[in-house]
Formats: sequence, structure tokens, C-alpha cells
Amino acid sequence: MTEMAMNWFWDCVTPDLIQTFSVSAMPYTGKSKYQSIQILDSPAFGRCLVLDGKIQCSESDEFIYHETLVHPAMIAHPKPETVFIAGGGEGATLREVLAHKTVKRVVMVDIDRKVPQICQKYLPSLSQGAFDDSRLELLYMDALKYVAETKEKFDVMILDLTEPLEEGPAYLLFAKEFYQDLSKKLKKGGIMSLQAGATSVMFPSTFLAVVNTLRAVFSVVAPYQAEIPSFGGPWGFAVASQTLDLRELSPEEIDRRLASRVRGPLRFYDGLAHPGIFSLPKYLRQQIAEEKRVITKDKPVFTY
Amino acid sequence: MTEMAMNWFWDCVTPDLIQTFSVSAMPYTGKSKYQSIQILDSPAFGRCLVLDGKIQCSESDEFIYHETLVHPAMIAHPKPETVFIAGGGEGATLREVLAHKTVKRVVMVDIDRKVPQICQKYLPSLSQGAFDDSRLELLYMDALKYVAETKEKFDVMILDLTEPLEEGPAYLLFAKEFYQDLSKKLKKGGIMSLQAGATSVMFPSTFLAVVNTLRAVFSVVAPYQAEIPSFGGPWGFAVASQTLDLRELSPEEIDRRLASRVRGPLRFYDGLAHPGIFSLPKYLRQQIAEEKRVITKDKPVFTY
Amino acid sequence: MTEMAMNWFWDCVTPDLIQTFSVSAMPYTGKSKYQSIQILDSPAFGRCLVLDGKIQCSESDEFIYHETLVHPAMIAHPKPETVFIAGGGEGATLREVLAHKTVKRVVMVDIDRKVPQICQKYLPSLSQGAFDDSRLELLYMDALKYVAETKEKFDVMILDLTEPLEEGPAYLLFAKEFYQDLSKKLKKGGIMSLQAGATSVMFPSTFLAVVNTLRAVFSVVAPYQAEIPSFGGPWGFAVASQTLDLRELSPEEIDRRLASRVRGPLRFYDGLAHPGIFSLPKYLRQQIAEEKRVITKDKPVFTY
Amino acid sequence: MTEMAMNWFWDCVTPDLIQTFSVSAMPYTGKSKYQSIQILDSPAFGRCLVLDGKIQCSESDEFIYHETLVHPAMIAHPKPETVFIAGGGEGATLREVLAHKTVKRVVMVDIDRKVPQICQKYLPSLSQGAFDDSRLELLYMDALKYVAETKEKFDVMILDLTEPLEEGPAYLLFAKEFYQDLSKKLKKGGIMSLQAGATSVMFPSTFLAVVNTLRAVFSVVAPYQAEIPSFGGPWGFAVASQTLDLRELSPEEIDRRLASRVRGPLRFYDGLAHPGIFSLPKYLRQQIAEEKRVITKDKPVFTY
Repeated sequence: MTEMAMNWFWDCVTPDLIQTFSVSAMPYTGKSKYQSIQILDSPAFGRCLVLDGKIQCSESDEFIYHETLVHPAMIAHPKPETVFIAGGGEGATLREVLAHKTVKRVVMVDIDRKVPQICQKYLPSLSQGAFDDSRLELLYMDALKYVAETKEKFDVMILDLTEPLEEGPAYLLFAKEFYQDLSKKLKKGGIMSLQAGATSVMFPSTFLAVVNTLRAVFSVVAPYQAEIPSFGGPWGFAVASQTLDLRELSPEEIDRRLASRVRGPLRFYDGLAHPGIFSLPKYLRQQIAEEKRVITKDKPVFTY
Repeated sequence: MTEMAMNWFWDCVTPDLIQTFSVSAMPYTGKSKYQSIQILDSPAFGRCLVLDGKIQCSESDEFIYHETLVHPAMIAHPKPETVFIAGGGEGATLREVLAHKTVKRVVMVDIDRKVPQICQKYLPSLSQGAFDDSRLELLYMDALKYVAETKEKFDVMILDLTEPLEEGPAYLLFAKEFYQDLSKKLKKGGIMSLQAGATSVMFPSTFLAVVNTLRAVFSVVAPYQAEIPSFGGPWGFAVASQTLDLRELSPEEIDRRLASRVRGPLRFYDGLAHPGIFSLPKYLRQQIAEEKRVITKDKPVFTY
Repeated sequence: MTEMAMNWFWDCVTPDLIQTFSVSAMPYTGKSKYQSIQILDSPAFGRCLVLDGKIQCSESDEFIYHETLVHPAMIAHPKPETVFIAGGGEGATLREVLAHKTVKRVVMVDIDRKVPQICQKYLPSLSQGAFDDSRLELLYMDALKYVAETKEKFDVMILDLTEPLEEGPAYLLFAKEFYQDLSKKLKKGGIMSLQAGATSVMFPSTFLAVVNTLRAVFSVVAPYQAEIPSFGGPWGFAVASQTLDLRELSPEEIDRRLASRVRGPLRFYDGLAHPGIFSLPKYLRQQIAEEKRVITKDKPVFTY
Repeated sequence: MTEMAMNWFWDCVTPDLIQTFSVSAMPYTGKSKYQSIQILDSPAFGRCLVLDGKIQCSESDEFIYHETLVHPAMIAHPKPETVFIAGGGEGATLREVLAHKTVKRVVMVDIDRKVPQICQKYLPSLSQGAFDDSRLELLYMDALKYVAETKEKFDVMILDLTEPLEEGPAYLLFAKEFYQDLSKKLKKGGIMSLQAGATSVMFPSTFLAVVNTLRAVFSVVAPYQAEIPSFGGPWGFAVASQTLDLRELSPEEIDRRLASRVRGPLRFYDGLAHPGIFSLPKYLRQQIAEEKRVITKDKPVFTY
């Protein structure tokens, strides 16, 4: 059967649901101190980064993820000059942040030195030279520790973390204690955003708990979602702030800010796309309203 | 390995991308004159209907599909009294249509007598008795022929068809000629809606062609999308009319109409969810704008 | 992709090797007190019995397994009149034993009352009425307890047990203590046989340990193997006795005994096939010679 | 799910039966003029060579295949000095041939220059330097043409060809016409051997036709089989000659010849293993006896 693809990557969404795609080459397979790292080439999604068996991004749809994570918070802020990024070793979140001409300084903290190395070598389209930008300070350390100890405050803080896997490096970064620390490091009028797990009707559990935990810390929390095909379904995000509510922005104002501040055209996000990601289905709004869990370091949430 | 599920259904989205879910039982497997029919039980999605190897609906997320297909067009119409449904043998589209108290008559035309039989037996939650409603006239015949020959006209016409598979029964129902016939059977001020294939960034091709073909026939075409997890990604729909533009409806007006006209609460669709399905990403709006194909019976489009 | 089979059974041979076959129907899925039970229809193997996720037999190749398990020991015995069977709930081992005209009495002990019921209903070709034979006494109890307590002795004793899965019902029946009890219930000149797990070059571990454990109890142990496609590779067996060595039988003598004693033609086993199953590859004979493990109830062996 | 392997190779045995194993790395993926070539690392089988999507050999069980293909014919011949090999680009058949001290000259003809290159680089254990042996003449051309045109004759001729896939390079090398040409190039008292496809009870069709085609050309044909786990089941072979019948060799004579002629110990084949591969099951002998097909270039046989 020469025409059927022979090698397949299995991404186990749940024990009973698998997204599998064919793999034409495996340019890199290795391990860092923190996680397994793989670069796969797939006809369906192009080149992909896989950490601990979970796809992190693919060439074909990473623009959806990264634009959705970065621009709502950046645009909501009147003039974002200092930005903090936790995680995001691929460099694409950094790339989108640096596209904002207002930005003067970015501090990016990733625990795993190897991910940026591997991605710059095998997936240079993700960072597009962003790691060489003079506005960047890149630190390899625990974001938890950095946020707790830094004296610096930021206009925008972005969490681009792997899912809270039971054995993975990130689960404490989804807890109320960390969000409280983050809140203290936001400048007045500052805003944060993060990815928050799948929003699929089948298993929105992590997303719901993250959103509710944010609400325990921040005055204004706006959950939203976008479809990321390589993740196997719709993905949740949230922006959170003590003061700013980006839901008040009109499509026209969003487009005006994007035009004046952002270098280069975006592909996913603009004023008309904005309501598409912030207007959630009725059942999901109800589930968010009814959610009671607050994630703490003693009561963590783990994704399968 | 007793804990791993043993039986898996493979839904080939493309030759290089498969969504697979475990199957705990196969209550029915058979063939009708037109297609293979299967009822599967799956831990991920509950009980599913599968036609010609493609999942048609699952207990867990059919409400998203059917509410999204039916209510935008029904709500856009000031007073839908007569409704035509092509396909929809599961009975769930009919169920949603009949929930509108304004409806006095529904003509439903499905080519395959066996699908309603099997679904009423194995998936009664889909139709919830709708097939017994006295407002219904149910015909087993080719919808193409019915629409061409009927003298009747309708306020709302809904196409709930299987994808245009090369060997399947439905591909001529995605052609301009059929849309022209449909348009003639809409009453003045009437509106139609249909499902139009996947909108995933990877393979929106069928969706784009369907939307453009509608534009060749109707003055107002509003494409939209919703995430249907069991379909393996976001799914496209469109409403089309010569006069009505539902994009002018405010969330408040949508909620007002739903409250006054529709029996029972909806789970997915309401005024706040509405912009979430009609506000498309920038790249998808651009692709729609640039699309040139018009599907005709001589130049059909086939989905993998 | 209507031509590709949609439902697949996965038989995990090891965590890194899976045999998967398409399933056209699942006539029965249930659980007994002891194990999960499934009847599957597959184009590759016909109807199959699956216990705890492991295929036990298929219509297409069960004759290989059952003839190989039963006839070498039966033929080696000069006149087998009383036979004991442990397990074998499908009834096919019983069918092969009862084909021997010398047999006057069979005691069959299976722990799970449900397997014979399900198999007689869904796989009647396995037992072919054997359960109704007046020579049979069928007991539903633990074979361990029966063998320990019975006062009866047998000419031939056959163990047709599921693999020693960690959570399964059978692992104590692969231990030296049980073989010692068995040996005491063999009449003088008696012989036993059993299935002993995969002999594949990749993972012969259970087979090697079982053979060596038999050698710790019996004077003459003859390991052998046959290819059972639905098991995913070659399968190991052994005959053991304090006195009888069937390897001394010539092909002519085997054919003579089969002709005079066995009703109906066999499909797999005869004098010419005999050396094909008892002549093991050099590396496997060496591994058997070097094996040191003796399975005891305190040091059990588990198959993946 | 970090513990489950993520990348899997699917070897489609039939459209309804797949052997799949996990892949930890893909050191090489490419195409030659004749076929696709892949080197895979798998926990189950070690490093593997895959041509046109079919596994050709794995580090863990290639010794079974190559010893079984080469030594019965070589040992049957009283003094093999000149040997012809068709195919066998991996170099392991060559390795086994050159282990015979009697051999003075080997002509090896493979159509695909790239397979030996890739194998020497990625799987050096297959050839173990055999390509550098001064007794070898290696030609890259169509074996069909070479055999038709050469003036040379050989003591032993070995066909180590890929299966007769419909689009593959080898199918004409399984036809009566080629066997007739081969027979003319055997010295008096010469013998040939070949691999002849799966012997599984489910799909022995190619094997049966090849054996019967050999019988149309050679006076003595001895079919045999061995279990090759990475091929997904038992595999068929045959030796054929106008005069020599290796079935007359006693185990003792086989061991004597191996000891005196072959450098280094074998792992699979010896006098005791010999009857294990040549004593076929009763049903398979019957199928061979009843087979009527003779493969000709106008009536080829294709393997799935």
C-alpha cells in the first residue's frame, strides 16, 4: 500500500480521543533537562514542535495561536512599553510582541535553554530573528522565581506555558499564588494574557478552572478562544487586569490601534475577528459562571 | 494492556490527518440503498451516527451543529411559518425547527428512508418525537427533484446534507443550479441556511467554494462557523437571502426573538454567541473575498 | 475515504508493537465476574473471542491452536481414556479431545461460566456440540482448587489458560506449585500439555520461564511452537511427562495413531507437520537451555 | 500522555490487518530512482530498512531471514564455489554467502545503487564489510537482463527480491520466464533459493503461486517457512533444483557441513532447526498440492 502514509504521530487528546497525523521526517529528537523535544515534518501541518508528546506549534497555524495570545492584551493597553513573557521558547510570542513599535523592553523567562536553540535551528520562521532584538533580555530560569523576586514592573505580562501536565515543568504557573505575584508586578493599568487549555465541549475542565482562578485575583477577566487545528480543537485564552477591559474596544478602535502601532500585517486578528474570539457559546459562558474551583499550589490542576 | 481502549473508529479528515476515538460498542452496522450506516458508542462523544465512514453527529455535540444550522436563519426571518428541510434524516434539524412556535408547516425531504428509522431506534434524543409532529410532511425522494418540481414556496429552507463525497448522494446539492432552484422556492423575504464543510485553516476549500457559489445566486450571503469537536474541527455554515441580512440583528434583538418564539432553552446559540460565529478570522474573510470557483453540476466539488 | 475500514481492534503485543485489524461488527461486549468479554467480526480473521483485551481465538486460525495444543499429548499417550482440561471455555479444546475415540471421560474446569455461554451462542463452530457430549463433566471453579483437592487421576491433562496477566485470573496456574499438584494427578504414564506464551525472538520471556518451570517438575519436557496469525506471531506450547517422550514418535507412527483413533480429518497436525513444530530454531533452544527462572507463586511471571 | 510512544510506523499487511510499531527516530528518508527508502529506529525491532512502505529487514530478526534464505541451498550443494545473488542490496545475504569458505566468486546484481549506499551508512551490521570482499562482483542493473545475457553459470543462485508489488521493480522476477532463464544459468548440480512471500493461513496466495511456478521449471522444489516477526508473520522460501534434494540431508550431515564450511556460528539454522522450517503444516502442503496458477510475465501476481 505505497500510497498510504507510513509514519504517524499520535497526539492523545484524551485516553479515548486521538488526533493522529502522518510524519514525513523527524529532523530532531532529544531531551532537555526538563522535557522531551521533537521536531516533526507533517504534510498536514508542516513542521511541528512537540514537547513531552504534546504538539506546541505547527508552521501552518502558529500564527493563529500567537496572534491570539499576544495582540488582544497588547492592543487593550494604551501604550505597552515593557513586556514580560514567561515561556514561549519558540520565539513566536516574542516576535509578535516586538512587532509593536511602542515596546521598549521585553524580559522573557524560559526554564529550558534547549527549546529556543532547537527552534532557532529547525523552525527559524517562529522567531524571525526576534532573539537578536536589542530590546530583549532573555533569562533561563524558573518564571515562578523570577516573578517572585524581580523589582521590575511591566505594562503587559504574557504567559505562554506548556499545559499543566502532572510530570511537566509548568503546573505551578497555573496557580492562584503565581497569579497574585504576577498581579503585583503589573504596572498600574497593566494587563496580562495567557493560554488556558482546550475549550472543547468535551473537556473544558482546565480552561474553566484557570479562568475562575484568574477571577479570584483580577477584577476584570475576559476569557476567549480560537481554533488551533494542530491542537485538535478550540483553544482557550484569557486576558486579566485590575482595570482594563478590552471588551469595551470597538472593532474600529482595534483596527486603528493595530494600524498605528504594529509593524506588518497580521493574518488572524483584527477588529472584525475580535468578537469572533471573545463571544463565547452560551453553554461555555454558563460553565464559566458556575465554575467553583480555584487552582492553588496545594490543589493543582493537571491536564491529561 | 487491559486499560487501553481496544476498538477505535478512524475518521480520515485528510489522507494525512485522522481523528480517532475509541468505540465501546457498535449497536448497528448496515447499508441502505444509498450509503453505509453505523451507530457507534464512544466514551469521547457518546453515541454517534456514521454515514459512509463520516461521522454525522454525536450525542455530545449535536446541539452545537443543529442550533447553529437552524436558528440564525429562523431568527433572521420576521415570522417563519413554512420551512423546507433537505436531508437531516437524524431528525435533530427538524426538532430545532419545530421548536419555533411560528412554524405551521415543515416539508422534509430525505433520500434515504433508513436513516430516520435507524436514528429513531438508536438515537431517539435527536428527534425527540419530532417525526410525529402533525406539522411535518416527510418525503423520501431526491431533494433536487422535489425543489425543481414543487409548486410550494417557503419562508426558510435549510440544507442539512452530507458532504459532497465523490460517490455519495449529495454532491449535486452543492451546485449553483440547485441554489437557483432553491431561490425560486423561497417566499419573498425568505432565507436559506446550510452546512458548508470544514473551515479549518488547513482545508477550507469546499467551504470557500460553497460560499462563493451562494454569492453567485443570492444578494446577501453570510458565512459563519462553529466548533464541532466530533467533526474534528471548526465547521462552516452560511445563510443566504435576496433581502434579509441577519448581520444587522443586535444581540438584544436576537435574545428577544428567541425568548418570544422558541420553546425551551437553547444550549449554544443566543445573542452573545451570535458574533462568535459570524465574526470570522481575517485570513478566512480574505480567502472568501478572493475565492473564484463557482460550483456547477458540470464542475462539482468533492470533499475527501 | 469510504474504502478504508473505519473500526479497528488494537492488540497491544508490547508497548511498542501493536497488531491492529479492522472490525466490521461487535456482536457482543460485556463483562463476567472475572474478565471483559468481546465477540468481534473481522475481515482478516473472521469472528474472534477477546478476553481482557487479548484475542483468544479466531474462526480462521483456531484450528491451528487447538490441534497443536491437544493432539501431540493425546497421540503420545498409548491409550488416553481420561482427560482433564483447565480453562478452554470456548469448547474447541474439548472438541479436539472428544474426537479421540479412546476417550471415556473428560473433566473440564473453567472459572468463568460466561465464556462457554457466550461462545456457544456466538461461536458455535468452536465447540460443535461438544458441551453436550455425555463423556463430559463440566465444573465452574478454580482449576487450582480442583487439582489440589480431586481424588481422580488422568491420562492426559491439558491447560488451555489465558496468559498470566497481572490482573487476570490465570497467573497462579503458571507456577511450579500448580505443576507439582498436576503431576500428582497424572496416572502412571500420563502426560500433560499447555500453551506457554509467545516464542517470538523479540519477547520469548514468558515461554522460556514456563518451559524451565516445567523442567523443575517433570522428567521429560518437550517445548514446541506454531504460528497463530491472530496472536500476532509464533506461539509456544509444551508437553511434559515423567515418562513419555513424544519426540521418539516417527511421522509414520503419528499418522497411524491419528488414523486409528481420531474421528474426522485434522487440518494442521499430522506426522509430517510434527517435526515442523518440535524442531525449534537454534537460538531458541539455546535460550531454553540457559533459562534459570522457575515460576513460583511467590515469584510469578506476568505477560504484558 | 508522555509514556505512550508517539510516532508509529504502519505496515499494512492487508487492507484489514496492520502491524504497527513505534518509531523513536527516522535517520533517513528519501527516494531512489526505483523506490522510496527509509531507515527507522524502533524499540520493538531496532533499526529497520523500509522500501516502498514495506519493511525489508530489522536488526533484531534479519539473521532469521538471511540464514534461512542462504544456508539451506548452500549446504545442499556439495561444494558451492560460484554464487549469484539478485537483489539483496542490504548486503546481509552477501554476508551469509561469503561466510562459506568454499565460495570463490559472487556476482550480485541489484537494480538500485542507493540501497547498498544507505545500508552501509545506516545499517553496517547487515553487510559487515561484505561489499569490500574481493570475491564480489557487484553490478547495478536489471537482474532480468543480466541473467538473460550472461555467459556465466553458477553453483548457487539466490533471489533476495522485494515483493511483487504492482508498481514495484520486482514483479517480473517472480515469473516462469525468469525461472527458466535462471535454470539455464545453473551449473549441473546447481541449486537456487528465493524468498516467496507470506505463508500465513490468511493470505498464502503469492507463496503458493511462486512455489507452483517453480515446479513448472524445476524437478525438485522444496518450499519452507520461517517466522520473521518484523514481517508480521511466517515467511515462505523455496529451494529449487533439477537434481539436488536437500530434504535427504540428515541433521547430522547438515551440522557436519556447517561446521566444516561456514565461518562463525550461525544463530538460527542448524541440523535440528532444519526440519522445523521444511516440515510444513498439513493444510499448507495440501494448498501447495492443489495450486494451479503459474506466474508468467503476462499473468503476473501482485502482493498487496
